[in-house]
Amino acid sequence: MRAVDVIMKKRAGAELSREEIEFLIGGYVAGTIPDYQVSAWAMAVFFRGMTSAETGALTEVMLRSGSSIDLGGIQGPFVDKHSTGGVGDKTSLIIAPVVASLGIRDPMMSGRALGHTGGTLDKLESIPGYRTNLSVAEFRRFIEADGFAMTGQTKEIVPADRLLYALRDVTGTVESIPLITASILSKKVAEGAEGLVFDVKYGSGAFMKDPVDGEKLARSLVDTGAAMGKRIIALLTDMDEPLGHMVGNFLEVEECLDCLEGAGPKDLMEVTLELAGRMVVLGGKAGNAAEGRGLCEKAIASRKPRDLFLDNVKSQGGDPTKLLALRGNYRSEFVATVTAAQSGYLSRIDAWKVGIAGVSLGVGRNRTEDAVSPVAGVQLHKKGGEAVSLGETVMTVWGKDAASLDAALPLLREALEYTDTPRSPRKLVLKEIASE
Amino acid sequence: MRAVDVIMKKRAGAELSREEIEFLIGGYVAGTIPDYQVSAWAMAVFFRGMTSAETGALTEVMLRSGSSIDLGGIQGPFVDKHSTGGVGDKTSLIIAPVVASLGIRDPMMSGRALGHTGGTLDKLESIPGYRTNLSVAEFRRFIEADGFAMTGQTKEIVPADRLLYALRDVTGTVESIPLITASILSKKVAEGAEGLVFDVKYGSGAFMKDPVDGEKLARSLVDTGAAMGKRIIALLTDMDEPLGHMVGNFLEVEECLDCLEGAGPKDLMEVTLELAGRMVVLGGKAGNAAEGRGLCEKAIASRKPRDLFLDNVKSQGGDPTKLLALRGNYRSEFVATVTAAQSGYLSRIDAWKVGIAGVSLGVGRNRTEDAVSPVAGVQLHKKGGEAVSLGETVMTVWGKDAASLDAALPLLREALEYTDTPRSPRKLVLKEIASE
Repeated sequence: MRAVDVIMKKRAGAELSREEIEFLIGGYVAGTIPDYQVSAWAMAVFFRGMTSAETGALTEVMLRSGSSIDLGGIQGPFVDKHSTGGVGDKTSLIIAPVVASLGIRDPMMSGRALGHTGGTLDKLESIPGYRTNLSVAEFRRFIEADGFAMTGQTKEIVPADRLLYALRDVTGTVESIPLITASILSKKVAEGAEGLVFDVKYGSGAFMKDPVDGEKLARSLVDTGAAMGKRIIALLTDMDEPLGHMVGNFLEVEECLDCLEGAGPKDLMEVTLELAGRMVVLGGKAGNAAEGRGLCEKAIASRKPRDLFLDNVKSQGGDPTKLLALRGNYRSEFVATVTAAQSGYLSRIDAWKVGIAGVSLGVGRNRTEDAVSPVAGVQLHKKGGEAVSLGETVMTVWGKDAASLDAALPLLREALEYTDTPRSPRKLVLKEIASE
Repeated sequence: MRAVDVIMKKRAGAELSREEIEFLIGGYVAGTIPDYQVSAWAMAVFFRGMTSAETGALTEVMLRSGSSIDLGGIQGPFVDKHSTGGVGDKTSLIIAPVVASLGIRDPMMSGRALGHTGGTLDKLESIPGYRTNLSVAEFRRFIEADGFAMTGQTKEIVPADRLLYALRDVTGTVESIPLITASILSKKVAEGAEGLVFDVKYGSGAFMKDPVDGEKLARSLVDTGAAMGKRIIALLTDMDEPLGHMVGNFLEVEECLDCLEGAGPKDLMEVTLELAGRMVVLGGKAGNAAEGRGLCEKAIASRKPRDLFLDNVKSQGGDPTKLLALRGNYRSEFVATVTAAQSGYLSRIDAWKVGIAGVSLGVGRNRTEDAVSPVAGVQLHKKGGEAVSLGETVMTVWGKDAASLDAALPLLREALEYTDTPRSPRKLVLKEIASE
């Protein structure tokens, strides 16, 4: 077999065999196929796409490039959620203890903030002492103790994805649905989940700006995952505006505590409960999404998930008492406000602009090696659809330093769009995509 | 500027600026842009194409990657011909002395046999003593003395093309018309030609199997060359059957001598005269192609081109007397014949199969580092359209060794296609493509 023939076959739009994909990507990981052939192949995939069988084969080749987490001996069911990323998207921190309180184990491996999107690991690490670099033994122990654990991806998990993603990032081949599918799915399968709920976001603050593209990715994830024997549901959810009132690291941890105490913002709770309810279904604890959602609402009212969250903080190196004491006052000293430029209604708060402002403030980062600030962020006192008066405070903004405020404030002002008339509420969950 | 942005711009189908092409390809040659980005870009070009302006910019960037031949001080006009390659295609060796005899200088840089196509340098080197590795000083001197010279491409000529072609060859990005255009044109401009006639071949023995693709390449060469200030004409010619009766190295030199003595085969002379006539037009020695062709016919009758050919043989290290003495008897000892499998007419002799058989015999090569045999080849006693009787000798075949005959003979038999009725003559020159 020659790599150039495999590339040309894909270039012509034909379906590659499992052996051909193994030869090319397995060879790349082993160092026998050079990067310039893989990047040309990836560009051909961008233009020609892949069938479900090809995407499944690629996912499995990537999965086998490393080791999977062994959850053997721990009582399941193991169900996880994965979001394609957004602004103010902190549902993971709420969902994990909620479903754990209902007997579902969530082996959560998360990522870091990059570009305009936030990262679960960065949010958790804003809790003083909290560690996200768990050993496999710790990960297993905490899942058994608290029902869930939150860690970063270990080096042993899908090394092919790190290699391939780094190559795609510099060769203009990131935006390919089958390649995105294999990247996401291989990592989620490796972490040991049997059931998966995908939160595929669309809108200005999402990776996919258009719901049609979002639905294609959701369909690809569901079909490929199902072909690999996993139970998968995907929801297509709105990320045109930030989710909740808080965009930041510790700020978002605080908002999660609010949610776990029954005082969360409506939009954030809606998306959280729709996702969590389906995890309960996949875990076999409810017959349908509505029943699953009802169980989650009851669980939150019981305060059990809040206790589990604090137990997890303790397990992973944090101090729950200290965390609660920091609430409401762990903020940067560099603070400013954004006020309404006119009276009327906010028609929209552009999630992308808030996310980009967040990078300047120190919430996120442009390069993986940059540090983030636990105490930077934006509090949205008003959300899209609400009435505002000229000069009224709409946002409080904390920056890592004074210069960061100068950079972020004009963009945050631009993120605010006004109208004279009230708007109808946005549909937060557009669609459910399940295997057929 | 970032390479990934240039790749993504091309991926989206947008036109790249001259600066962006310079950044990417100039950077590649300079070693600042890695091959994996260039291969992804080349695949995007395969799918999205390039405008004439982009192709021209790429050609110029490639041209500037090395040095051009300085023909300053030599009396022009300088006109050359370039063929996209075929089987039995030896028009260069006839054309150069013919147009030289009419006062046109042909600074000819040629290539070697590769795959099923023959190579001018290999044919010339079958003349004992003939050297094709001329220094620039020799190249200039022989052009001045004989009106033409024939050499291989020096290392200083378009190094970008060697780099880029080697990368395209292993990444499935050879078959892109703008990339082919820039590769051909940059080398032809670098050799110092002011006017160029392109022989773009189509059919089984050509790089382009389909005349529609051939015409696209011809159009691209003409438009891009014209935008660079060159006078260009392209002919779209048939390469579904071998040209002439000889396929080999010394065999083809012999057939060229026949042509220069007025005894060449009809099909070969037709294509040769149509190309040469247009070179005479581009060189300003005739007002139109018919007039140019008439001048070439008269020149051949005068025997002056034959003398110039022998002068060139002497200039480049061969012995004209020895060459003439070898004529008709410089053949491999390993010889066989192919006879007609039925009585009737030959409907077609498949050029591709003859070319591939030629690789086995030692006429051509599969890898650039392989040697070829001067004395191997195929003589076609009959051509497509002619009547044959069962058992009649259709081909004489010489191989570099006995095993090579065993490999080639079945393929040569397969190359013969029969019919019961005579066919109408093939159109050899399908179309002329000139700048608008």
